[in-house]
Amino acid sequence: MGAGDGHGTPVVSGGRARSGDSGRRVRVEALAPVMVLGPREARHLQVLRLGPGAEVLVFDGQGAQAQATLAELDAGRAVLHLGEAAEAAAETPQPLTLAVALLKGDKLADVVRAATELGVARVQLLVTRRADAREIGAQKLLRLNRVAEEASKQSRRAVTPPVLAPVALGELRWEGQLFVAQPGAEARLTQRLDWSGPVTLLTGPEGGLTEEEVLDLAARGAVAVTLGPRILRAETAPVALLGAVAALGQ
Amino acid sequence: MGAGDGHGTPVVSGGRARSGDSGRRVRVEALAPVMVLGPREARHLQVLRLGPGAEVLVFDGQGAQAQATLAELDAGRAVLHLGEAAEAAAETPQPLTLAVALLKGDKLADVVRAATELGVARVQLLVTRRADAREIGAQKLLRLNRVAEEASKQSRRAVTPPVLAPVALGELRWEGQLFVAQPGAEARLTQRLDWSGPVTLLTGPEGGLTEEEVLDLAARGAVAVTLGPRILRAETAPVALLGAVAALGQ
Repeated sequence: MGAGDGHGTPVVSGGRARSGDSGRRVRVEALAPVMVLGPREARHLQVLRLGPGAEVLVFDGQGAQAQATLAELDAGRAVLHLGEAAEAAAETPQPLTLAVALLKGDKLADVVRAATELGVARVQLLVTRRADAREIGAQKLLRLNRVAEEASKQSRRAVTPPVLAPVALGELRWEGQLFVAQPGAEARLTQRLDWSGPVTLLTGPEGGLTEEEVLDLAARGAVAVTLGPRILRAETAPVALLGAVAALGQ
Repeated sequence: MGAGDGHGTPVVSGGRARSGDSGRRVRVEALAPVMVLGPREARHLQVLRLGPGAEVLVFDGQGAQAQATLAELDAGRAVLHLGEAAEAAAETPQPLTLAVALLKGDKLADVVRAATELGVARVQLLVTRRADAREIGAQKLLRLNRVAEEASKQSRRAVTPPVLAPVALGELRWEGQLFVAQPGAEARLTQRLDWSGPVTLLTGPEGGLTEEEVLDLAARGAVAVTLGPRILRAETAPVALLGAVAALGQ
């Protein structure tokens, strides 16, 4: 963190009235005893009507966050003094990955936004047999990562989940449990979920995964789980599955 | 069902390749031994490359559905012969209501679409203290009902859930259980859900419900449930909560 020039990408979050608002969040490049932010961030803090002595939460986007006190503030810069480390309570007990097939149009942005709110540690894009799309442009991938960053701030997470370039389904590797949403499956995610290791949730493209793809995943240890007896759109299934995890309190 | 004029609003659904496709669905005004559809529906059936003898599923949008056999088909009309009643397996054991606060823009359409896929029997719009909007125009309400109808077809439900004009939160009445998603709540929907009666899921507006609103609901028997430790957007919470129900297999 340099002096007064706002380099890096510190971002000030907050300002929307929400129930249970727990204070202003300021993204910094790294946690340090004294953190100096540049004109843009200082202006934001002024807009939020904060003055010297105000308590804020600083976070680095990598999982570290802490209380901090605003020591100085003028139009040109803001100085923050580090306080106690804050527990990053918004994270799941072990990393949660969403592995999702490429989808057309803006659907992936909607999925990434909701998945970030719902606590994923990363989004792994997949190329599957029936996928609408077989690749994704660099600009679009960059945009999806920006969507994740914005959603991370809005939901007050200390971590911004990366959105990873697609891999072929057959090349996906995972640790811990992998659950795949599959029409007709009878196992319930809510009964099988076990946070003794990382968890991956996998959902297919608009046309669904092929039987061969599901069998291959099962042979590699994946568990097919139900999302009820109806046909869900490809962009609804990941949010529903992540919702089930959230409803378990994680 | 009249003869050959397609009156009412029969609609032919299907045509998208999906895994586990269980046949073509045709909406009819009422189930009858012989059902005659008009030129528009006949054309759809032709596009689907169906011919005499083809099996289809007919449904009336009110919960009744049955197998039917295509007896005649030309450009002007289609004649269907009723077969066995089909179980409406896509419905929850008891009616599931989503009670959702009015939201700005197209957010309600997204919520209605996902809620229909996830099995709600109706959507009850709510006016709450912090709502972005206090009313909804007749055209917009009509459009939301059309979104529900389209989503119902896509997810092969026999029922189209009505989207009901808003009531004030204090005037909401319900039977059975009501669960309200509330930050900080510890109860889990997945442990409390009981299909011995109807179930209502309630989510608030962008700013959240006020403490007073939540206390009032609790005094009337509502159970506040967790959706994890993060802050969710108002349009994500209902999908997450309904996803938890779906992940229980319903």
